[in-house]
Amino acid sequence: MSGESILFPYEEHEYTREGINMENIYNPNPGLPEFVGRTVLDTVGLVIPSIDVALRREMKLPDDVNALGVISSRTGAAGQICAVDEAVKNTNATLVSVELPRDTKGWGGHGNYIVMGGRDVSDVRQAVEIALELTYRNAGEVYINSAGHLEFAYSASAGEALNTAFSAPVGQAFGFMAGSPAAIGLVMADKALKSAGVTLIRYMTPDRGTSHSNEVIIAFTGDASAVKTAVLTAREVGLALLCAMGEYPEGPSTPYLS
Amino acid sequence: MSGESILFPYEEHEYTREGINMENIYNPNPGLPEFVGRTVLDTVGLVIPSIDVALRREMKLPDDVNALGVISSRTGAAGQICAVDEAVKNTNATLVSVELPRDTKGWGGHGNYIVMGGRDVSDVRQAVEIALELTYRNAGEVYINSAGHLEFAYSASAGEALNTAFSAPVGQAFGFMAGSPAAIGLVMADKALKSAGVTLIRYMTPDRGTSHSNEVIIAFTGDASAVKTAVLTAREVGLALLCAMGEYPEGPSTPYLS
Amino acid sequence: MSGESILFPYEEHEYTREGINMENIYNPNPGLPEFVGRTVLDTVGLVIPSIDVALRREMKLPDDVNALGVISSRTGAAGQICAVDEAVKNTNATLVSVELPRDTKGWGGHGNYIVMGGRDVSDVRQAVEIALELTYRNAGEVYINSAGHLEFAYSASAGEALNTAFSAPVGQAFGFMAGSPAAIGLVMADKALKSAGVTLIRYMTPDRGTSHSNEVIIAFTGDASAVKTAVLTAREVGLALLCAMGEYPEGPSTPYLS
Repeated sequence: MSGESILFPYEEHEYTREGINMENIYNPNPGLPEFVGRTVLDTVGLVIPSIDVALRREMKLPDDVNALGVISSRTGAAGQICAVDEAVKNTNATLVSVELPRDTKGWGGHGNYIVMGGRDVSDVRQAVEIALELTYRNAGEVYINSAGHLEFAYSASAGEALNTAFSAPVGQAFGFMAGSPAAIGLVMADKALKSAGVTLIRYMTPDRGTSHSNEVIIAFTGDASAVKTAVLTAREVGLALLCAMGEYPEGPSTPYLS
Repeated sequence: MSGESILFPYEEHEYTREGINMENIYNPNPGLPEFVGRTVLDTVGLVIPSIDVALRREMKLPDDVNALGVISSRTGAAGQICAVDEAVKNTNATLVSVELPRDTKGWGGHGNYIVMGGRDVSDVRQAVEIALELTYRNAGEVYINSAGHLEFAYSASAGEALNTAFSAPVGQAFGFMAGSPAAIGLVMADKALKSAGVTLIRYMTPDRGTSHSNEVIIAFTGDASAVKTAVLTAREVGLALLCAMGEYPEGPSTPYLS
Repeated sequence: MSGESILFPYEEHEYTREGINMENIYNPNPGLPEFVGRTVLDTVGLVIPSIDVALRREMKLPDDVNALGVISSRTGAAGQICAVDEAVKNTNATLVSVELPRDTKGWGGHGNYIVMGGRDVSDVRQAVEIALELTYRNAGEVYINSAGHLEFAYSASAGEALNTAFSAPVGQAFGFMAGSPAAIGLVMADKALKSAGVTLIRYMTPDRGTSHSNEVIIAFTGDASAVKTAVLTAREVGLALLCAMGEYPEGPSTPYLS
């Protein structure tokens, strides 16, 4: 997953104009400069050019952060965190915070609320644009049916956001899987870890590390091909189990891991 | 917002009889003296004339509390707390506890569970009736669309319930706003705080002060007109952003802040 | 509630073949030996013959546990815990953990994630089969309408799972009730505790002991007939209140307590 091949030339278009993927990223322009765009999974991207001083204090922002870029979604976690991870790598923005509310619009998982910071608004605007674009792509690995949901993510090289959210070693390959109801997540995790020589870095359950979501989640690192194999194994097992509980799970965009 | 102008003469009718707002507050009378009424947002109002001794111990009730009045809803927080705030001011009931479950029937926010106490059942019954009536009115400032929701509240003079729930200074003006997904709440908060000279008293996010809801929430105090201005600014910004994510948000009753 | 009269002869059929209750427990066989079956309330039953070593460490499993049996559901708590309680009593499986995510598919309660352990997979498979069968039966005491939900459970003799989950005294009668929105749970609890000489063993609210669900929950023990009376009283009150808020609540199977 190289940054260059994924990112569209944001300098050349705005979300309010015709452009690539406009059918997926709809911007009716609310007349607010803060609005950057929206995409699938009820994801919105916003900027704040100069954050209010009382909020700055509560958020414990570093002195050199004036502008904020914010991504949040009703559904999804790792996909958006991976998107922000790439956005931070490829811009002057830095990561401020990652929080995972208990959401998913009635399903058993998380939404997300991710704050990035920068010296000025152009830094964070670019980061939000990248994060929106990649959120759309990464949403291809969210699978939802009437019984539950699955989420998968992979990065060839974890950066600041994945390190903060999951203690992923920076510069190493990163793999993620979540399954709901939680029991299917545990079987997926077991199969994934046995499939390849990967190192478990995070094990999460309803009472451990989640916002009481109905999921078992694992994150892992290791050799890039082993991490990819483990993610694909988890996906195969998860899809079989979720299909055994209900109809074939649809996703908001196109699966991209292979 | 003066108590007198809002409160209907509860002495003169019961919820089971014809009366003002009966179309909004439906009581099929389950044959239980505990049932007072219900209203929008799946809100129910109940009384317990003399609470069981084991529950009394668990709830750590003061000795002079025998009767309980209870309000709870699947959706909404500040509106119902403001309603109870007025109810406690205008009756002999006192506040026992305010809890905010993670609910909203599949949306990203809170419901509520609010307990009032009194010496006898007539005290708490009157308080529950007032709280139900005001819950209906306050629900006009709840806005829900397919992408997210907004909630606003304003009191010219905070009382016991707002003090307990949000550390609002008693006797001072109180303002509240919540936006979901959380990112839109942050932009609303920033705009509100900059719009007028108000003092931030509570900043809440998915991991801070909420039940892991997908919201940024702020509460603030200050001069009454400044607080009102800040609430209305947040509402304008929030509606613009929520409309940018989906259809115009409907509410269960009529907006009343202006 | 005696084990013998409830349990079907699992030795004689598999879920993939024709058999008793097959209309309720559907198994399209995903081609994975881990899949045992599914039943109402989006409940799945799975086994792991030999758990991965990294997961074993995270789960702090005892040395003599090699195989895991897992039950989890999007909706329900006490019914599935009671089901596992009987399953553990009647097999060589032991209880590993009980967790209650905030779920119920958009309603105000919990789902569940329950792990059992055993020396080998035949022990836990049998336990999962029993737990699935009893989950179907116990789901008859889950009541859901558009406003909220109720759940009831009763065991003549609590075992390991009820002891772990609710501190129920082993070998004693166990009663459970939950009501949502929370206020109706409090009135149900008050009526139940006053109806018979039972001892309160657990009092749970949105901020206490739950995963921020919109419920008041109590568990209690005592003489078997008193515990049964208290459960039935809570059910009568709860149904009256829930009907006062909306339509008559349907359940996924047939009420069985009487």
